[in-house]
Amino acid sequence: MNRHGGFKTQERVESAIEKILTNVKTIGIEEVGVYECAGRVLAEDVIADTNLPPFDRSAMDGYAVVAEDTFGASKTNPILLKCIGEVRGGEKPKLEVKSGSAVRVFTGSAMPKGANAVIPLEFTRVVGEHLEVFATVPPYKNVSREGEDVRKGEVVLKRGEILQPQDAGILASLGFESVKVFRKPKVAVISTGNELVEIGEKLEDAKLYNSNAPMLCNAISQLGFSAVSLGIARDDFEEIEKKLFEALKFDLIVFTGGTSVGEHDIVPEAVSKHGKILFHGVAMKPGMPTAFGMVKNKPVFMLPGSPSACFLAFETFVIPALFRMVNVRVIERKGTLKKGILQARVPSEIGIRSNVRVYWEKGKVYPVRISGSGILSSLVKANALLLVPENVEGYEEGEEVEVKLIRDITEVFE
Amino acid sequence: MNRHGGFKTQERVESAIEKILTNVKTIGIEEVGVYECAGRVLAEDVIADTNLPPFDRSAMDGYAVVAEDTFGASKTNPILLKCIGEVRGGEKPKLEVKSGSAVRVFTGSAMPKGANAVIPLEFTRVVGEHLEVFATVPPYKNVSREGEDVRKGEVVLKRGEILQPQDAGILASLGFESVKVFRKPKVAVISTGNELVEIGEKLEDAKLYNSNAPMLCNAISQLGFSAVSLGIARDDFEEIEKKLFEALKFDLIVFTGGTSVGEHDIVPEAVSKHGKILFHGVAMKPGMPTAFGMVKNKPVFMLPGSPSACFLAFETFVIPALFRMVNVRVIERKGTLKKGILQARVPSEIGIRSNVRVYWEKGKVYPVRISGSGILSSLVKANALLLVPENVEGYEEGEEVEVKLIRDITEVFE
Repeated sequence: MNRHGGFKTQERVESAIEKILTNVKTIGIEEVGVYECAGRVLAEDVIADTNLPPFDRSAMDGYAVVAEDTFGASKTNPILLKCIGEVRGGEKPKLEVKSGSAVRVFTGSAMPKGANAVIPLEFTRVVGEHLEVFATVPPYKNVSREGEDVRKGEVVLKRGEILQPQDAGILASLGFESVKVFRKPKVAVISTGNELVEIGEKLEDAKLYNSNAPMLCNAISQLGFSAVSLGIARDDFEEIEKKLFEALKFDLIVFTGGTSVGEHDIVPEAVSKHGKILFHGVAMKPGMPTAFGMVKNKPVFMLPGSPSACFLAFETFVIPALFRMVNVRVIERKGTLKKGILQARVPSEIGIRSNVRVYWEKGKVYPVRISGSGILSSLVKANALLLVPENVEGYEEGEEVEVKLIRDITEVFE
Repeated sequence: MNRHGGFKTQERVESAIEKILTNVKTIGIEEVGVYECAGRVLAEDVIADTNLPPFDRSAMDGYAVVAEDTFGASKTNPILLKCIGEVRGGEKPKLEVKSGSAVRVFTGSAMPKGANAVIPLEFTRVVGEHLEVFATVPPYKNVSREGEDVRKGEVVLKRGEILQPQDAGILASLGFESVKVFRKPKVAVISTGNELVEIGEKLEDAKLYNSNAPMLCNAISQLGFSAVSLGIARDDFEEIEKKLFEALKFDLIVFTGGTSVGEHDIVPEAVSKHGKILFHGVAMKPGMPTAFGMVKNKPVFMLPGSPSACFLAFETFVIPALFRMVNVRVIERKGTLKKGILQARVPSEIGIRSNVRVYWEKGKVYPVRISGSGILSSLVKANALLLVPENVEGYEEGEEVEVKLIRDITEVFE
């Protein structure tokens, strides 16, 4: 049988992937700090143990007032209130606002007791000890209510979510220093072939530099996993066996090459002796001489030695296995543009570029409702952004729009 | 003036980005090892100092022969050759093939002197010391010619390329242990606001956890750059000045918040005192209170404190600056799907999934010509993959196809 001609059995790509996914499992759970959690996959639901905001706070720079005091106020008919002090951001309010009085507040200031609205600075004028108010505000106008963003007890992030920078934001807001995530696989890469020498060594006779190991190590680390090259094994059964034993310390093993020996498939033979071959030969070009097996519960990929075939077999078979080990099937990566039908009108102001947080699902685009300054959870509930350019006055319900994913779309295995 | 209402001057987004890009420069060049170069931007053209393959080699398992000896050979009319030995992968051939003789070779074996073609194993049968040959091979059939993949002196990778795993492969093949890349910026992140406390600390009064620093640090490291949080500065001019001085050790500085003080923009004031404000206030929602300046040649971003506005201003303004510092404008990221018109027929076999390396440019898709085993450079010359499914017999010239980028599409600044 010729390695490059045709294999006796050629596994179809989809069936090969399914064999991989049913054999590969998660490899444990660990804690990771919130400052370095992006790209990790949550191993637990995250439940808010506090309200966000944790207290009523001002959403504007202005004056905390009793809303009812402002009823009827206008530019031509200002109302006079007595300014009795201020609450700065981070300060606990000590004053109480009674009818007829006002307290200076800033964006984020805790609302003083008694006040139920904020009148923005530009609708006021200070006149000595008093304040002229030029506009009417209804109750709770310009106030972010306690719990309006996140309610205590709410599931904020679900198990299986690939954590994004914005998730680190909400985790920190809730006071989490770390979260439980699936452990990332450590990968051993072994290049086989009598013809190979390592870069930096002298190239003599008919030798070639080992190029697959640097290619694969870079590909693995670019995905956020870690990889170590265990160097080169000669086309020798015992040498390959020895490398295989050494690699069993790792979570996933990738062999490349070993096809130059012709009739013998030494790597699959070694894997077969100590474990089980699940498939050998796939209906894919390039990449046909790809094999996969399990040795002592560790997935072992045997990729072709030709660089292109190696690269494509890695993309097709190894990447799904790496993500399977952290419990996710990746359907769409963050950054992808998706089209969809807008499910509600999105207004925007001419001359301003708006970034609307939306949820994209199966061709439908749902704007994420943002009430008050409930702005933290909107970034977590949204999975995409809809950009409204300066010259567009928003989009209508039913219009087709293009959005950019800010979150990977995934499925969870367990 | 109200911070959230409207700025006196609102810079349009595109013009703000252009101001950033004309002020930010690259920050130096360093060497990086080929095992960890993915994502780095080349600071030099890489020129092949050797041919690839470095010698004529066999592209098949079979027998190296004088092509002319096989002329007229067929299943019914085999030709007899004398097998005089073998050349294994990595071995320097010592034998010379003369008319009437053949040498056993393997994929990758150096071609023995005198031989100019390889007859694949399946068209031969060993009969004692002799070999029956059942097929005709033309000269150089199944031989990868020296230099057919890469010619000595050729520019293999251009300055400004964002290096991909496959590039690490070709660099290693050419014997490069390291390459020169643009130095990556180290970013200092400073959160400002009296209301903030660090996660892990006790939350009392009307305080909030610092959530922007973990969000930004994750976002920066996810892009492959490095970030350090310098902690929280209170809304105090001297304290902000002190943090600014500390941050000048870094390559790029990001402040968030400081808007809760109302009338005062302390951060822009501090930046203005020691440097220059380029814009303050942008025509974007959320994200309007964004400012940008330069202090002692270091770019300083002042992002709004609201998490969503902070996130969006980071995406819109800081990311282009980070890539500007490594000399690239990113137009499309790797992984993006692009449509285009196929410029040449792509054949494929029913039942086999083909991965065709293509070059996508402005809506046109050019298959990358692969001669012989010229397979290494094809992965470098291609910027996308065209997948032909099992049930499709290839695509015709002029058909619209969808391809997946395997390389970022960028523009170089300098």
